[in-house]
Formats: sequence, structure tokens, C-alpha cells
Amino acid sequence: MEIETEKSLVIGLDMGETNSVFGIVDQRGNIKSQTVISSTAYPDFDDYVKASVDALQPALDAVGGIGNVRAMGIGAPNSNYYNGCIENAANLVWPGIVPVAEKFQEALGIPCRVTNDANAAAMGEMTYGVARGMKNFIMITLGTGVGSGIVCDGKIVYGSDGFAGELGHVIVDRGESARACGCGRKGCLETYTSATGVARTAREILQKNTADSLLRELDPEKITSFDVFQAAEKGDALALEIFDFTGTVLGRACADFTAFNSPEAFVFFGGLTKAGDYLMKPLRKAFDENVLRNYRGKVKLLISSLNGSEAAVLGASALGWEESL
Amino acid sequence: MEIETEKSLVIGLDMGETNSVFGIVDQRGNIKSQTVISSTAYPDFDDYVKASVDALQPALDAVGGIGNVRAMGIGAPNSNYYNGCIENAANLVWPGIVPVAEKFQEALGIPCRVTNDANAAAMGEMTYGVARGMKNFIMITLGTGVGSGIVCDGKIVYGSDGFAGELGHVIVDRGESARACGCGRKGCLETYTSATGVARTAREILQKNTADSLLRELDPEKITSFDVFQAAEKGDALALEIFDFTGTVLGRACADFTAFNSPEAFVFFGGLTKAGDYLMKPLRKAFDENVLRNYRGKVKLLISSLNGSEAAVLGASALGWEESL
Repeated sequence: MEIETEKSLVIGLDMGETNSVFGIVDQRGNIKSQTVISSTAYPDFDDYVKASVDALQPALDAVGGIGNVRAMGIGAPNSNYYNGCIENAANLVWPGIVPVAEKFQEALGIPCRVTNDANAAAMGEMTYGVARGMKNFIMITLGTGVGSGIVCDGKIVYGSDGFAGELGHVIVDRGESARACGCGRKGCLETYTSATGVARTAREILQKNTADSLLRELDPEKITSFDVFQAAEKGDALALEIFDFTGTVLGRACADFTAFNSPEAFVFFGGLTKAGDYLMKPLRKAFDENVLRNYRGKVKLLISSLNGSEAAVLGASALGWEESL
Repeated sequence: MEIETEKSLVIGLDMGETNSVFGIVDQRGNIKSQTVISSTAYPDFDDYVKASVDALQPALDAVGGIGNVRAMGIGAPNSNYYNGCIENAANLVWPGIVPVAEKFQEALGIPCRVTNDANAAAMGEMTYGVARGMKNFIMITLGTGVGSGIVCDGKIVYGSDGFAGELGHVIVDRGESARACGCGRKGCLETYTSATGVARTAREILQKNTADSLLRELDPEKITSFDVFQAAEKGDALALEIFDFTGTVLGRACADFTAFNSPEAFVFFGGLTKAGDYLMKPLRKAFDENVLRNYRGKVKLLISSLNGSEAAVLGASALGWEESL
């Protein structure tokens, strides 16, 4: 019990579109207790906070009460670390500016910080994962979109407004046929190297190409990156070509990103990383071929070691260990 | 004299290929005294340090002695802030690893820091120039090459090895006809937006195009960016097209760089900035058209306010004010 009286626990909240997952986490990244509430059932944010505290109570009791908790970290879309607010998040039920950190701080009586998912993931890797001990690295999350969390000198780069680190929206193709992106522009990295980007690549290649493929048995409009992975597992040449293309685009982009903060490593996270070497082999090759000589051989390309389902809560909780708290 | 007894001065050394310029600088960026020695006349680095101290002595006497000097900052090619060494600088007479900071620290008895020219320029802008008070900005130097100094949270980004911030070597063209770069790769930003890049653009456009131009009166192999500027001043359409192209390439690249650290501003420095609006107008246009919506309207695009001939010494000297000293 001695360690716990030193406030050796933190709360992590992964605020998703549908569910809000809370975890009480120790310094080694063990989730001691977990609880979930709906993210959509409380249109009034004060009610949401109240429901959160109620749901957390049994979990807190189990670890000896809030007195043993140092702080709370929240991973939420469109959130601003500097002011602790969620700002105009299209996929959450609360419109406008929501002072999330302040509200939870009041309700729980402990310091509270908020950041977006990719930055939380980077914090998680630095605190509990493969980036432990690293001071300079770049986290790349490969999900429906492509997110990033950039760490310089041991700290997340938030920039002048709290919204730094949008590497998924670096433009990698300025050609006529560059892909339209949800951001309103064309050719963004995420249109190629997200899970949905892989599905787009699949449809494009199936159309351009007449080669046989297991993927031809599927409705092109419904192909997912997981379908491509399964076909690759069966040795399907076209599926391998899709991952080759994806890894190459991502490897080239990461080579360019290296010129920014000369990172010790890139850490990749998200569904796409399950493709393993199908993705990582062409990625490494393109990275080595495209990175500036000064950096060659110095940069590790790693896959996250955190359990996918726990990673978001762990990442959020990692904010609770920040020295500034 | 009261202020001077508080060590209110710093020494800046701009170590160039040919000359080494020393300045004794006050907190407002006034160069109180300046002296120069040859960078090539002392193949033994110890002799160079001795010659430096000898040359500095009258300047130091004039400001009341080394007791009034807080520290020394050095801007030098291929230098590593972390270990204080110049590492394998092809254009300096000292081969291998040279412990510059240590040697000057011993000789002068004051703390000493070293960094490369572009980082020194960024420090100079932050300390005495247009970036005063900014915590997040990107310095872009447009000279023979393109250099960069990136500031996050008030600090230069040095990365894992001291060599971060090589934005001149981000690849902006992966096409067949991308330009060969001195780094051994193709399509680097600096092959388009350096002074030499502008001259290359001039040669390319003159060749592709049969339009009349004042530039046709010159030997294409000898055209410089200054020739293009002079032609633009006379309203030469082709010269304007060359700056349009240059500004567009640079504006697009800066839009991408913004996704990294969401800077408050870009600060441009170097001979090319003399082109003023010929360069800055297309640059701003391309930036606005290409930057992610989140950042639009937030980022200033500025030209350095420091006197060109003093900027390098001032930049180097700015290292001497760092809190960590």
C-alpha cells in the first residue's frame, strides 16, 4: 500500500465517438480497473461528467480511492492541450468549445489534461511502450485516417495553437490524379496509407489491372484493408502489390519527416500494422532509399508494442504522469 | 557601466569557409565591436583558436574585458550542438571531429556553444529579429543551398543526433525529370528554391520557351538569381515566371511543413529574399492554397529584419544568451 499512498495511479479516458473508456493505470502501464460509459447518451456535458464520476467510483474504491490518483489524462478528437478544450468536434455530441479538462478537474479534484488520439498514442509509447527512454520520435497512427504525434526533446510538439502534428495531411501527390481527401484538398498522405487508403488502392489496382486475384471475388466497393491482408496471407500477388505501394508511399513520406526532427524512431500503430512485413518491408526499403545520407541507418522503424484495445486508454493515462502537473 | 558588470555582452563567431567574423554583441543586438581572421590560414585548430583570442583582445579591452562577457556562440557548418564539435566539414580546413566549443571555452574561460548557420539564424531572429517573442516558428535560409532552423516551444529542434532541421532536403518532386541534388538524391527543395535553384529554373525555362527575355542576352551557364531579379525589376515576363515558379514550390513546401509544428511564422532569410514581392507574392498564394484548413490565416510569412552582413554574427551570438548556460 505504500506505493499507492504516493499517488502512484493515473486515470486515462479514451473518449471515442461511441464509447468512453476509463482505465485506472499504474506506473508500469497495468490497467488496474476499467469502466465504460456511452459517449452519446449525455447531450449536456455536465451530465456526461457526472455519469463518468459515478461510473468511476467503484473502480476508484477498488484502488483505495481518489487519494491514490495523481491526475487524469484524456484522449479526445479535436482537443487542444493548451486550453484543455475540445473544439468543434464533428463526431461528438457536444457542439462548440467544451472545457473538458476544467470540468473533470472540478468533479474529481485532481489535475486533468487533454490531447488528441495520436498525441496520446505517442505519450503511451514513450511512457509504457517501445519508445520508452526516447526523447525524439514520431508516432504514426494508421487507422481510418492517418494521425501523428511528434516528440522533440521528450515533449509532444503542440505548436503555436495546440494543433501541430498533422502529418497525415502532408501532400504526397500533386499530380492530376491525386486522391481527394476529407480535408478538402488532394493528395494527402492519409488518402494512401490509411486503412481506407489501402481499400482505395485496391479498387484502383483492380480496375487498372486484369491480373487474377482473390480480391476479384469481392464487391470492390466493400473491400477493406483486412480483405487485402487476408489475400496477401494466401500469397495473392495483387494484394502484395497493394501493400508494396502503401509501404512505399509511407516510407518516402517518413524519409522526408526525418529531416524535421531527426527522430530516433518512427512508431507505427493501428489496424494496418497487423499486415506486418507486407507493409513494413516495402516501407523500410523506401525509407532507406529516400532518406538523406546524414540520417541513414540511424532511424528505427517500429511497430507499437501496446495491446491495441488498451493502447488508447494507456496513451491518455500517460498524460497524467507529466512533470508539469 | 553597471549593466556591463552583469555580463551583459556575448561573443558571436560566424565561422565561414573563408573568413571568421567575431562580434561582441549586447542584449539588444548591437554589435559593439567586430574583428575578422582568416578561416584557412591555421591548419592546426589550436593555432586558429590562439589567433582568434589575439584578434579578440583589443575588442574585449574596448568593452571592459572578458569579465563583461557572458558566453560565446559559434555558427559553423556541420556543427553539432550536443557535443560542441564540427563534424567532417568538407569546406573547412580541419578534417574529422573538431571540439570547437571545448577549445574556445578553455581559451576564453566562458561557456561556449556551437550550431549550424540556419539554426544560428533562427536564434538570431528569436533574440533580436522578427521572431522576438515567438515560441514556434521555422527559419528558412535561401542561399546557395536551402537551410532551416526549427523552433518548437522556444527551443531549436536538434533531434536525436543534433542534425535535425534539414528542410532543404525534403523531396518536392519525385518525377522522372526531378533535379539532381548535391546530397546524391533527386528533387530536393533546395534544387528549386536556392539561389542556384533559381538559376537552374532560368536555364530550363529559357530552353523550353522561345519567348523574348532580357535574360537571353546573358550566357545561360552564368545566369544568377540576381540577374533574374534585375530582369524582373524591368518587367521581364520570363523573369517573373521564374520567381512565380520558385515561390510556388516554396509556398507548397511550407504549407506541408506547417503540419509539423503549426508555426506562428516562417521567417525567410538570404539573398533570394531581396526579390521581395516577386518571390513572396506567389509564395503566399501557394501557401494559402495548399495549407490545411486548421492552419489557414494563422501563419505569418516574414522576411528577416536583420541586416544581412550582421545576421550571421548576431545569430551565433544569440546562443550565448541561452538559459542553460
